[in-house]
Amino acid sequence: MKPGSHLLSIDDFGVKEADRILKVAKSFEQQLKFTKKFNLLDGHILASLFFEPSTRTRLSFESAMLRLGGSVLTVVGQTSSLEKGESFPDMGRVVSSYADIAVMRHPKEFSVHELCKGAKIPVINAGDGANEHPSQSLLDLYTIQKSQGRLENITIGFLGDLKFGRAAHSTVKLLSRYPVNFVFISHPYLKLPESVLKVVKENGRKYEETDTLKDVVDHTDVLYVTRVQKERFLDLSEYEEVKSVFQVNKDTLISAKKSMSIMHPLPRLEEIQKEVDLDPRANYFDQVQNGLYVRMALLAMLLGKADGVSV
Amino acid sequence: MKPGSHLLSIDDFGVKEADRILKVAKSFEQQLKFTKKFNLLDGHILASLFFEPSTRTRLSFESAMLRLGGSVLTVVGQTSSLEKGESFPDMGRVVSSYADIAVMRHPKEFSVHELCKGAKIPVINAGDGANEHPSQSLLDLYTIQKSQGRLENITIGFLGDLKFGRAAHSTVKLLSRYPVNFVFISHPYLKLPESVLKVVKENGRKYEETDTLKDVVDHTDVLYVTRVQKERFLDLSEYEEVKSVFQVNKDTLISAKKSMSIMHPLPRLEEIQKEVDLDPRANYFDQVQNGLYVRMALLAMLLGKADGVSV
Amino acid sequence: MKPGSHLLSIDDFGVKEADRILKVAKSFEQQLKFTKKFNLLDGHILASLFFEPSTRTRLSFESAMLRLGGSVLTVVGQTSSLEKGESFPDMGRVVSSYADIAVMRHPKEFSVHELCKGAKIPVINAGDGANEHPSQSLLDLYTIQKSQGRLENITIGFLGDLKFGRAAHSTVKLLSRYPVNFVFISHPYLKLPESVLKVVKENGRKYEETDTLKDVVDHTDVLYVTRVQKERFLDLSEYEEVKSVFQVNKDTLISAKKSMSIMHPLPRLEEIQKEVDLDPRANYFDQVQNGLYVRMALLAMLLGKADGVSV
Repeated sequence: MKPGSHLLSIDDFGVKEADRILKVAKSFEQQLKFTKKFNLLDGHILASLFFEPSTRTRLSFESAMLRLGGSVLTVVGQTSSLEKGESFPDMGRVVSSYADIAVMRHPKEFSVHELCKGAKIPVINAGDGANEHPSQSLLDLYTIQKSQGRLENITIGFLGDLKFGRAAHSTVKLLSRYPVNFVFISHPYLKLPESVLKVVKENGRKYEETDTLKDVVDHTDVLYVTRVQKERFLDLSEYEEVKSVFQVNKDTLISAKKSMSIMHPLPRLEEIQKEVDLDPRANYFDQVQNGLYVRMALLAMLLGKADGVSV
Repeated sequence: MKPGSHLLSIDDFGVKEADRILKVAKSFEQQLKFTKKFNLLDGHILASLFFEPSTRTRLSFESAMLRLGGSVLTVVGQTSSLEKGESFPDMGRVVSSYADIAVMRHPKEFSVHELCKGAKIPVINAGDGANEHPSQSLLDLYTIQKSQGRLENITIGFLGDLKFGRAAHSTVKLLSRYPVNFVFISHPYLKLPESVLKVVKENGRKYEETDTLKDVVDHTDVLYVTRVQKERFLDLSEYEEVKSVFQVNKDTLISAKKSMSIMHPLPRLEEIQKEVDLDPRANYFDQVQNGLYVRMALLAMLLGKADGVSV
Repeated sequence: MKPGSHLLSIDDFGVKEADRILKVAKSFEQQLKFTKKFNLLDGHILASLFFEPSTRTRLSFESAMLRLGGSVLTVVGQTSSLEKGESFPDMGRVVSSYADIAVMRHPKEFSVHELCKGAKIPVINAGDGANEHPSQSLLDLYTIQKSQGRLENITIGFLGDLKFGRAAHSTVKLLSRYPVNFVFISHPYLKLPESVLKVVKENGRKYEETDTLKDVVDHTDVLYVTRVQKERFLDLSEYEEVKSVFQVNKDTLISAKKSMSIMHPLPRLEEIQKEVDLDPRANYFDQVQNGLYVRMALLAMLLGKADGVSV
């Protein structure tokens, strides 16, 4: 995470660097109680390139840039020179003439890596297909540390679609670097892939796998819920069954710890019932807010402006 | 119109509050002669959420925010998390993490009210289907007061499609709070609905209904023209007839007062002929300009920054 | 190029005014080495109206405005009041209430001229169909002067589709005002139109026409490459042949001057091979960068803020 470098994957930073990111984010969170805008990135321009709808992530990065005093150039949808067949490296080179840093989402895996081949400015991967979305994992990490006060001796449960959910994969891998335990709760069809489980094992972390939330909720400190997508099921009746079994509602919470934190990358549908929103354990909207702080930290650090931030 | 409150309907403010809005808008209008930008909303972010094309209204709000020194996050079209089935309250909650105030247009009635259920920031309704668009009515009020010098003892004519035109309904209701007279000029198919007429009557305002502009134009102080949409007619030949009868042109103006003000919410097609544009009574482009001042007032007031504005 | 005027065509400025634009652009280029942002256009708003995809040009203008301290309102795509049948002059008038200067691209020829009929603010044509795109020609001029150190006694080659390429037409016409020589290299199907050649002749400039790049590359100072579009050919095999004959690659450059500058309006496909990118003669990405400086100059000059720029 040196100034000028790219952030393409959670492998672009280690535990020490993640610690620094979290500290800078925390500092911004605290200072935003007293001010709405910093002058840290005054004069700097973010190119916000979203070739796939993702309003939440886009607005999060753009708001982060504005709060730091910078400006934003937005490209949304397919209305780009790419239509005319321009290569990703050429596009990266061109955007470097207009902006000081770029964030990109694209449905094609490794497209952001391709862009970086031509880019002369730092680039953040905001999701390249099924591959990575590292700022999501970092905000998850920040939220867990904030709600539990630590990143050790806690049990983190992942619930829902653990097979296809990109967010869960990256976050599990990132958390495996810390002395935490895992519980993976899913329908047998939607189990965590072996490739991700391998990382958990290699890091020597303990884990359970189950298809019954009820059996594990009492010793879970963080419950990370993900959406089960209808499209994954050939048999719709099976989807309806899975949907209700892996739903978080008031009943689910009866045996849960008072300090448990419920997370969700959003948007959420029925997998967390609205009745849970007012429960103090509901932490998914705070997670959104934390995304702002973490992205502010990333923008400031990659632009080499975070050195003066007191942490 | 207390700081932090929403503006969803003309029922969210009374005569006294409208007076305050108009005064703040007037103050901005005068000050904009000497400066292009205020620092009043420096550091504040407007989320501009337009889920239906409405470039004019969007740019008006965004320009108002920029003139006040704030920044803008834009969401246009259907490219949003709503596609993934997110609820309006969740969306309101999420946007509250990224912005300090929001303005929203959506084709669904009461969708903005739904958004407010989750929002932690003030929200302005910029049009929810056939329901309301209160800032349009306020800029109409401002324009009438500015052109006539008062909001009493004047006769205001509404011409065109009074049945389906949302703008006309709200503005008639709002004007009914003032001691003014009305003339409603329309094809019998396109008369003002009884529900709106009821408000006029309850407030004790005098009104005429006619299908002949010529008969009433001489005693009309304000002529508010609205577009007659082709889609409203089953019989296209009837549309062509109505279109020409309710058209404002040079001939129309021969018997009109010198002080009359011609208004139109725009975009206008043939219902006001271009030959009228150079007539000093043509006021529809000034109306656009007034929209900027009124929206500046709304943004500043809802964000609690208008107290220091000298009026 | 007086403050407040429009820039619709290269005919809106003469040699002396072009010289001034290039000098202001040069001044901005030099100053941008020391700062990321000027306060020259603080408080000013650019309306960026792109009714046709052209991300590169749009971002270039928007970045120019931001670097000068101004703000931007963006309209992209067909999501505009134009859908409702609004005329271009009305749109120009309306936009004048929201912004201080506008830039517009539209697929319809002379649409920007129409907009200007109603506009009360300066308007820059960023491409109206097959007609003009004057800022592109100016940045080409700037790039040639910068790479060759002069705009006289040089030979400028145009390669590729000289028949349909709008960029080439305007730039050839503009360059004809200077004492330069031309080489036009194209397939017989894609020769420069007689109307453009007429301007070259009227200005008394020497020119060659050929279909063989190899024969002329050794005495060419600037090689301006344009894309040959597949759609122009009925016979795809012919396209494939033309494509390879007019391709610039390492072999092409063997007999070229060391000081030659290779330009391209981008996006480029295969007409310049990637292997050329690292050659010091590759100048097309510098051309993009120069576009920023030239557009900064245009914005500042049309808004009457360039008088104090030391050149």
